[in-house]
Amino acid sequence: MADERLKKQIQFILEVDKIKNIFRMTKIHDGSRRENDAEHSWHLALMAFLLSEYSKADKIDILKVMKMCIVHDIVEIDAGDTFCYDTAAGKDKLEREQKAAERIFGLLPEDQTRELKGLWEEFEAMETPEAKYAAALDRLQPVMLNYLNNGGTWREHNITKEQVVERNHHIGEGAPELWEFASQLIDEAVSKGLLAEK
Amino acid sequence: MADERLKKQIQFILEVDKIKNIFRMTKIHDGSRRENDAEHSWHLALMAFLLSEYSKADKIDILKVMKMCIVHDIVEIDAGDTFCYDTAAGKDKLEREQKAAERIFGLLPEDQTRELKGLWEEFEAMETPEAKYAAALDRLQPVMLNYLNNGGTWREHNITKEQVVERNHHIGEGAPELWEFASQLIDEAVSKGLLAEK
Repeated sequence: MADERLKKQIQFILEVDKIKNIFRMTKIHDGSRRENDAEHSWHLALMAFLLSEYSKADKIDILKVMKMCIVHDIVEIDAGDTFCYDTAAGKDKLEREQKAAERIFGLLPEDQTRELKGLWEEFEAMETPEAKYAAALDRLQPVMLNYLNNGGTWREHNITKEQVVERNHHIGEGAPELWEFASQLIDEAVSKGLLAEK
Repeated sequence: MADERLKKQIQFILEVDKIKNIFRMTKIHDGSRRENDAEHSWHLALMAFLLSEYSKADKIDILKVMKMCIVHDIVEIDAGDTFCYDTAAGKDKLEREQKAAERIFGLLPEDQTRELKGLWEEFEAMETPEAKYAAALDRLQPVMLNYLNNGGTWREHNITKEQVVERNHHIGEGAPELWEFASQLIDEAVSKGLLAEK
């Protein structure tokens, strides 16, 4: 059978198939069902290279951003998806996700455990240009989907414009023009009655 | 509102959300449901960088491979998923997909239409090292899932080992060690009764 290194890589690749069963709050474009983490991550990776010209930093490593987008939610296989407006569940999120990262990335050969854990930690810290840009995409994508599916999660959970702005204004730190676009979308959502003003 | 260029990019990004409703024959790990193209493409993009050391070509542009993995099935939004063992449907596949590529990639600004159409055509032609490696992943992934979910599509459609080998031996052209691994998996599937010998 395959050598130890390939075995570990395959074991990881099969284990993370479980991400296809981790559902987010956001619904897909037609509102027919919730989106899962694999689909969401695919969408971000696509946006990462299509929208790279809007990254705030002039020089950005797009390969690294795409890798971040692909792996950023893998920890949710163990830790679950935490709804971004649920402040109670947010409290032990980091601890749950840290444990998940140890177990899941730990399935890989040591050098790749380090690489993927590093990518995830960098994404979470939101300090490097790549992480800021990836985080901007991670916020922009559900705003667009909620707009598209008639206010989906916003209406379901009585979210207000203030909450959406508070959650998403960080888009501006990674991609100012995309935050400008998102703000306009949020305002349109309010005027269409898809999002409560207050 | 956003300028023309960003508008086109956003329109494309929202249009391709439909890929989340394009279901493949292959089922996910637990056999609970069929996998969709967004999930499949996410999985390939992950494999692309984790398994790059097995690419037949020494020098390979992993960013390009990841982009290919992300966009390679977008044409199926219009053309549908063609089951790889369905030779009748395979006949007009190229024509249907070519038309889809024109419409969908055509939503983007011209330079990006060219880039994405180019990536898709390069993937389909399977001639460059990047395309051969991406095609190897595209074949390996469903073999692994079928093995994992107790022979899923193979058993459902009475597929034989000969058909699976005929379809998948191209893995060797992009990644010889991964074909060696896949062959062993196929043999194991036969001995476990998950795949018919003949």
